[in-house]
Amino acid sequence: MTSPAPAPPAAAAAQSPPPRIGLAGLATMGQNLALNIAEKGFPATIDALSPYLDAGDAIVDGGNEWYQNTERRIEQAASRGILYLGMGVSGGEEGARNGPSLMPGGDFQAYSNIKDILEKAAAQTEDGPCVTFVGPGGAGNFVKMVHNGIEYGDMQLIAEAYDVLHRVGGLSNSEIADVFAEWNKGELESFLVEITADIFTVADPLEGSTSGALVDKILDKTGMKGTGKWTVQQAAELAVAAPTIAASLDGRYLSGLKDERVAAASVLEEEGMPVGLLEKINVDKKVLVDRVRQALYSSKVCSYAQGMNLLRAKSVEQGWNLNLAELSRIWKGGCIIRARFLDRIKKAYDRNPELANLIVDREFAREMVQRQGAWRWVVARAVEAGISTPGMSASLSYFDTYRCNRLPANLIQAQRDLFGAHTYERIDRPGSFHTEWTKLAREGK
Amino acid sequence: MTSPAPAPPAAAAAQSPPPRIGLAGLATMGQNLALNIAEKGFPATIDALSPYLDAGDAIVDGGNEWYQNTERRIEQAASRGILYLGMGVSGGEEGARNGPSLMPGGDFQAYSNIKDILEKAAAQTEDGPCVTFVGPGGAGNFVKMVHNGIEYGDMQLIAEAYDVLHRVGGLSNSEIADVFAEWNKGELESFLVEITADIFTVADPLEGSTSGALVDKILDKTGMKGTGKWTVQQAAELAVAAPTIAASLDGRYLSGLKDERVAAASVLEEEGMPVGLLEKINVDKKVLVDRVRQALYSSKVCSYAQGMNLLRAKSVEQGWNLNLAELSRIWKGGCIIRARFLDRIKKAYDRNPELANLIVDREFAREMVQRQGAWRWVVARAVEAGISTPGMSASLSYFDTYRCNRLPANLIQAQRDLFGAHTYERIDRPGSFHTEWTKLAREGK
Repeated sequence: MTSPAPAPPAAAAAQSPPPRIGLAGLATMGQNLALNIAEKGFPATIDALSPYLDAGDAIVDGGNEWYQNTERRIEQAASRGILYLGMGVSGGEEGARNGPSLMPGGDFQAYSNIKDILEKAAAQTEDGPCVTFVGPGGAGNFVKMVHNGIEYGDMQLIAEAYDVLHRVGGLSNSEIADVFAEWNKGELESFLVEITADIFTVADPLEGSTSGALVDKILDKTGMKGTGKWTVQQAAELAVAAPTIAASLDGRYLSGLKDERVAAASVLEEEGMPVGLLEKINVDKKVLVDRVRQALYSSKVCSYAQGMNLLRAKSVEQGWNLNLAELSRIWKGGCIIRARFLDRIKKAYDRNPELANLIVDREFAREMVQRQGAWRWVVARAVEAGISTPGMSASLSYFDTYRCNRLPANLIQAQRDLFGAHTYERIDRPGSFHTEWTKLAREGK
Repeated sequence: MTSPAPAPPAAAAAQSPPPRIGLAGLATMGQNLALNIAEKGFPATIDALSPYLDAGDAIVDGGNEWYQNTERRIEQAASRGILYLGMGVSGGEEGARNGPSLMPGGDFQAYSNIKDILEKAAAQTEDGPCVTFVGPGGAGNFVKMVHNGIEYGDMQLIAEAYDVLHRVGGLSNSEIADVFAEWNKGELESFLVEITADIFTVADPLEGSTSGALVDKILDKTGMKGTGKWTVQQAAELAVAAPTIAASLDGRYLSGLKDERVAAASVLEEEGMPVGLLEKINVDKKVLVDRVRQALYSSKVCSYAQGMNLLRAKSVEQGWNLNLAELSRIWKGGCIIRARFLDRIKKAYDRNPELANLIVDREFAREMVQRQGAWRWVVARAVEAGISTPGMSASLSYFDTYRCNRLPANLIQAQRDLFGAHTYERIDRPGSFHTEWTKLAREGK
């Protein structure tokens, strides 16, 4: 809860100024964010918090909130003269402590009142603090939701890269740690790649340092909190294809069916399914690592393209006027998807704010063309060997669909017209057409 | 609008009995359904329809309705003593005329009152009429929605098969017609495969019979009506992976971006992308056709597995007690997805109503094992050649994920625990664990 920067109260001029911000309802991240704000010089006065707010005060909700809930609360608050911000916060436990990425949306006045505080609390980059006024209404929450969807995609793609390196290349955990550490010096430099390198170096603390890596002891069932699901549902709602993000959600759902998966492996084996890899792939480890890097990078570009287009579609629907370059900028630091790569996405939208798709930015287009051979090799080998790479495959299908100037959708339109009289358009003249397909087919025989 | 079978009215004993059913608000399918019902001996008395209903009368809504709207209307109707059925109807224009598949849900009493009418109006199979009481509330609408999602999947997969036959094998439209006609005699026998064969025989009626097939003149932009979108959103809501159905929805969305796709092809070409197929695939036409058939069949099994599991998940959530074998039975005839194959799905659920997934039914499992080599070949060649097969790829990823007893989801759990303290489970002991990953990684260096 915040107040506008107060005029020095006459009766208390010699005392410390009254608190301008207070926090309530704190879990892991909230507590660290409070400490971070306090450290920057603003009293975090949890004890002094009162349930009563005066007109002109503002409530800031920093949770992963459904954007429409925020819009309802903005109205409720406004009816009492209270301002409201729905603020996406990303950075995890450590990011909240040392500077997260902040995505506030709602009342601009409320943002203005605490802009200085948020700018100091946010992660700092050479491009400024990782905070901006995202837009009105629930824009801040929506942008954070898509951020999380992209995060799901990144994590799924990294997991697939690990699986291919491990199962195709036979790389040890220590080699995989080295690969990710090396990748973190190049185009893939990012928080998630960095922590992946770290993870593969950690020994099992319950069994001692000679027992192997802890990651091998972790059950392969992934949890989730809901924002990935919302992202997929919103993509469907807005007619935006987001198959990589959807694949990452499905990956989590299927990972949860551990018992079913074990049973399926057993039933299929009894029906003749070979155990292990279906094809032996002879490839030099260095070549494999290099190709997997390119596959990961290309897949990631497609995933971000989906997320950015989802943001744009929602912005148009809601009139939020989201600035995709500015959103890329505030994701450059602090948040879970922070990456060198986001600076290049920012520049692509600086070059052309109306860019239809990241893939057709000249710079990204050139990279995709250069990397597609390696990407196709990785996916094709995984398909032949029986390793599931749903995220990389979905990205590649997305790329090959989006770059295709003639899809077999003409057949689907013919089918729809045949059974439902839904009509079709033609390539050679304007208008809607309907054909008595079955009658003509019978006559032609 | 229907009434219970009336006792003969005393004053009108010599006249024809009063109408038991009337129809209102009819588009293409509704009109044909009315004619069909009239033909079977029940007066369809559109003119006599009145907006006033008496207690015990029933309203039957046969549109593609969102299931929760039906549930709200059931309550509204009940408050006035009126019964209500939300009835899914599939069969297209011709099916509605000659016998559709009917999926009524809501008030069982309303169903009982017109059961005899519906059973005569529905498509007839050796297994009985294609109608059953689906369940309470909006169950009928929900089942129809999933039917449509499966239909989207089938159409996408068939379009991909066509694209591969055409672009890889160079098959002519006439050869493609023959292939689908041949496929319609075997395991793929179905309405959609049958009409696809027909479509490829139809010459362009505007240009004359020597001008080539009409299908080539159709613009590759696919329309849709919303049920596919709902299916994908519900799958996400219910934590059911439905990637093939989602890929078919995305395929429609991306098909709609015709101008963007043409522009993307051009930008990528300017950045060095080769035009046409990226790899020449040398394969005998017959071998290709045989492999594509197996890929289509296997992909289809996975898509139906997704749809059936979505139905089961919703049934559990809502307490609808859906009978998956019975639903497969009423889809055997009349509807757009009618197919020989559905009889085998019915038998799989007869054998085991609790079947976790179609893929682990022994009979389907054996088929998948037998066909996976061809399936992988088709997908891998498409990936290498640059032909998008999002549906077949999604099905294959689904298969390879579901049959995998050890996914790389352990890494994702480690990442989540590192940045969000989300905890993880272990493979070797019970409980939830949290590790100070970053601290341990730094110490280990």
